[in-house]
Amino acid sequence: MDSLKKFEHGGNIHDFAADGETKQIIDFSANINPLGMSEATIRTIQSQIKQLVHYPDPNGRELKTAIAKEYQIAIDTITLGNGAVELLYVLSHILKPNKVLLPVPSFSEYERAAIASGAAISYFYLSPAMNFTLDWNLLLAKLKDVDLLFLGNPNNPTGNLLFVDDLERCIVAAKKENCFVVIDESFIDFRSDAELYTCRHLVQKYDNLLVLQSLTKFYAIPGLRLGFAITNPKLVAQIDLGKDPWNVNHLAQKAGVAGLADISYKKSTQEFLNTEISFFYEELCKIQFLQVYRPSVNFILLNLANTNFTAAALQIKLLENHILIRDCSNYPGLTNQYIRIAVKTHQDNCILLNILQKIIRKGDVF
Amino acid sequence: MDSLKKFEHGGNIHDFAADGETKQIIDFSANINPLGMSEATIRTIQSQIKQLVHYPDPNGRELKTAIAKEYQIAIDTITLGNGAVELLYVLSHILKPNKVLLPVPSFSEYERAAIASGAAISYFYLSPAMNFTLDWNLLLAKLKDVDLLFLGNPNNPTGNLLFVDDLERCIVAAKKENCFVVIDESFIDFRSDAELYTCRHLVQKYDNLLVLQSLTKFYAIPGLRLGFAITNPKLVAQIDLGKDPWNVNHLAQKAGVAGLADISYKKSTQEFLNTEISFFYEELCKIQFLQVYRPSVNFILLNLANTNFTAAALQIKLLENHILIRDCSNYPGLTNQYIRIAVKTHQDNCILLNILQKIIRKGDVF
Repeated sequence: MDSLKKFEHGGNIHDFAADGETKQIIDFSANINPLGMSEATIRTIQSQIKQLVHYPDPNGRELKTAIAKEYQIAIDTITLGNGAVELLYVLSHILKPNKVLLPVPSFSEYERAAIASGAAISYFYLSPAMNFTLDWNLLLAKLKDVDLLFLGNPNNPTGNLLFVDDLERCIVAAKKENCFVVIDESFIDFRSDAELYTCRHLVQKYDNLLVLQSLTKFYAIPGLRLGFAITNPKLVAQIDLGKDPWNVNHLAQKAGVAGLADISYKKSTQEFLNTEISFFYEELCKIQFLQVYRPSVNFILLNLANTNFTAAALQIKLLENHILIRDCSNYPGLTNQYIRIAVKTHQDNCILLNILQKIIRKGDVF
Repeated sequence: MDSLKKFEHGGNIHDFAADGETKQIIDFSANINPLGMSEATIRTIQSQIKQLVHYPDPNGRELKTAIAKEYQIAIDTITLGNGAVELLYVLSHILKPNKVLLPVPSFSEYERAAIASGAAISYFYLSPAMNFTLDWNLLLAKLKDVDLLFLGNPNNPTGNLLFVDDLERCIVAAKKENCFVVIDESFIDFRSDAELYTCRHLVQKYDNLLVLQSLTKFYAIPGLRLGFAITNPKLVAQIDLGKDPWNVNHLAQKAGVAGLADISYKKSTQEFLNTEISFFYEELCKIQFLQVYRPSVNFILLNLANTNFTAAALQIKLLENHILIRDCSNYPGLTNQYIRIAVKTHQDNCILLNILQKIIRKGDVF
């Protein structure tokens, strides 16, 4: 696989749609809030266009204040990113790890950012037979050889959710081995019980921890870019010195503030997903020969091994119906038989269910 | 000077205005196109807000095609930035220079980015007595000790314009010493004769050259962030692997395309500035005790040494009149007696001239 293909993502409607036709595609390949942008966010962006003649606030004060309030964290533990992913790169450039431990499959930008800073990668393969559950004892035994560990919670694309007790034990063990831990909570806000799973409060306690958070996905502004990291103030200062001072554009800062203030949007999203994720999962499970992994947030991993499709073949077939899914072939730890689909609106989900029910059959026995 | 103050910039209206009052300040501290955003750019941004639910094109194809056409360069020599400044950081992280040569005063982000990658800085002081003109022979003699050289053309904040013959001689000399050269042409588009001064055609000839270009300043979208670099395709690929694939947000990509297509906006800007820069410069020269450096683009450096103000005192005084200027005290190579002002609309420039005429007097003899 060439290096471009290796790191290709979902959500790249630009590769699949002729210019101007992006709206016609139903994009199940990117895990964005199915409710779309909140009205408050849209109005805020519209009202701020004329302010683009000024530089953004390099200190992002208004947004940091809103984040500190919403997530109950100290303002000096926050650094803002042009999307969460930017911060993976800046962090890697600063920490310059020699060896990075990656439980896989996981979000491919962990690996790409680590390689960008010259690190070697040590894969820790999660077992499909165990539903990709993390074996903590095996993982902890690997910490002595590495400088940096990336964990997604919940993990993309498997949907596995980790528990705070296990994570804290891991952070403590990592600290003894001089290993830094990044916990990516970019999807955690989609759960109404996020407080039970987040490690952001542990940042005050451990200086080898950074918690990453995207505001792009929940607030449905991937095109605008917005994320942040929570870590010790000393590392915050290093990160801030390691990046462009105007990295977060003005509209993203204002959209973030508007989004965080929109309590009813957050509530509606979580309530909708509570119901819709279960519905979508259960309906998918009813499709014979399809293996469905239990979701924890707004995306679902599927194994096509027993069906008449490979991931690539199903992607092509669905594009005929203007539906884009994530072919997971390029995830280390997955084969060419896995796809990931987002949980979208009830109507969109039903469209996909309907098509899958028609086309998925028993595969050839290999 | 603490490290925060050391790298403070102009254009930070957020520090000087209460929230929501930014419009009331006339900002002479940031060098943005005085015509403001073009109507086409504004309309494009408005029409693209609903597309923010999708990720930006990670390949920036439409924008790169527009840039390649406008600047007459090969598409594989372009890498896009979340502002030109982001690319300074990514480049420094990739090249990892040991020692960086900085003719100063110059744009402070060259230094900040170099320090972020762990480099030592070697200042090459430009002489105020020589109007900050570059002594090429002296500079070339310094190349043997350094890995990386940053040159602004025209240079911010002095306004000095460099000639292609000299620059090519410098690139050749640098190549012999294994030194990489960055030429920052972020203000060059403000000149209708930019073709006479640009080095972008030299990228095809020399693999130790990167030409940096901002689209933020000319198209008046600093709040949105947009820039690019032109360099050899191998380094383009390295830079692309060293940064977030979605670094340029969707609105910036679309605004860039719209701006570049708006030929009449470009022509109007250059025609207006051709007249207005001369007017502003000549009127400033008439104010006794003020030393005015000849501008080449849309900003002017002033020396207050013979006046009754320091830079800080004049900044405070003008803020009473809702005018923000750039106190240049934190530029290495300048003292607390230098300010920089942007060339703004004729009306704004006349307001500033009028106030300066009233308040500038002979200073105390030190």
